[in-house]
Amino acid sequence: MTVRLTPAPLTAEAFAPYGEVIETAGASELAVNQGTATRFDDLAAIDVAAGGGRPRLSIFRAAARELPLEIALMERHPLGSQAFVPLMGAPFLIVVGGRGDGFAADDLRAFVTAPGQGVNYARGVWHHPLIAIGAQADFLVVDRGGAGDNLEERALAPGAVTLDL
Amino acid sequence: MTVRLTPAPLTAEAFAPYGEVIETAGASELAVNQGTATRFDDLAAIDVAAGGGRPRLSIFRAAARELPLEIALMERHPLGSQAFVPLMGAPFLIVVGGRGDGFAADDLRAFVTAPGQGVNYARGVWHHPLIAIGAQADFLVVDRGGAGDNLEERALAPGAVTLDL
Repeated sequence: MTVRLTPAPLTAEAFAPYGEVIETAGASELAVNQGTATRFDDLAAIDVAAGGGRPRLSIFRAAARELPLEIALMERHPLGSQAFVPLMGAPFLIVVGGRGDGFAADDLRAFVTAPGQGVNYARGVWHHPLIAIGAQADFLVVDRGGAGDNLEERALAPGAVTLDL
Repeated sequence: MTVRLTPAPLTAEAFAPYGEVIETAGASELAVNQGTATRFDDLAAIDVAAGGGRPRLSIFRAAARELPLEIALMERHPLGSQAFVPLMGAPFLIVVGGRGDGFAADDLRAFVTAPGQGVNYARGVWHHPLIAIGAQADFLVVDRGGAGDNLEERALAPGAVTLDL
């Protein structure tokens, strides 16, 4: 039996078990720079200090994926959070599990971002690698650098889960 | 006598005394996510740990500035670096001084970014607040959160420095 995931619109409330949505909507606003800018402040819990970690800033260039997509592999980072923000606002797809040692196919949840939304996966949250749709897309990534094994991967049974809009 | 600054194209080499240019060009590339993405790795020296600081992720929405712009105020952050990456790729203008206790008007340098380029100001580098041009623009900002006085501002004499393309 195949689990067929259909993504729900990404909202801060629905995503709360997995981390934060990075967006201006609903954020604390401060006037800065002599009133010429607004700061939407402190949008994600960047959690990278475990095991002597440090914040690392990178750009990921993700190929567009074809839908329906078979969910073959999930991953998580036991030592740090990982934030993704699209650099040209492109929507993307998200598949997350819980924070436990594993996950059941029935526990997976899928989301589609609104233009401009990013996400920060909390430390230890199972998630699918980036799923760009429509066109290749660049993402700014803030995660943990430093020593230690910060990647766990878990393969799913072939045909167990597919994702489609 | 007024110093008239004309921005030079932003390059990693020219900006090196002030921090890093955040861009894919010239970066270390790694294949990640089962070959579906490229990681342009570790693009900025995020330096936010001084005084018990933590990494903070925010969005700045900057109003477009009119040119010529009088450079009336410079600022710096003695406790941490500060990175700015445009969220829709828009070019912006940069004015920087050195890392000393102050700066002379003649020591200021101006840059204009290419589309998509961001910058990370090193800790203690004098810089002008965000200068968006043409239209309002959003920037992802990674800087230091936490206790401590992390802002120094220095006013310039009226009419001392102007910036124009």
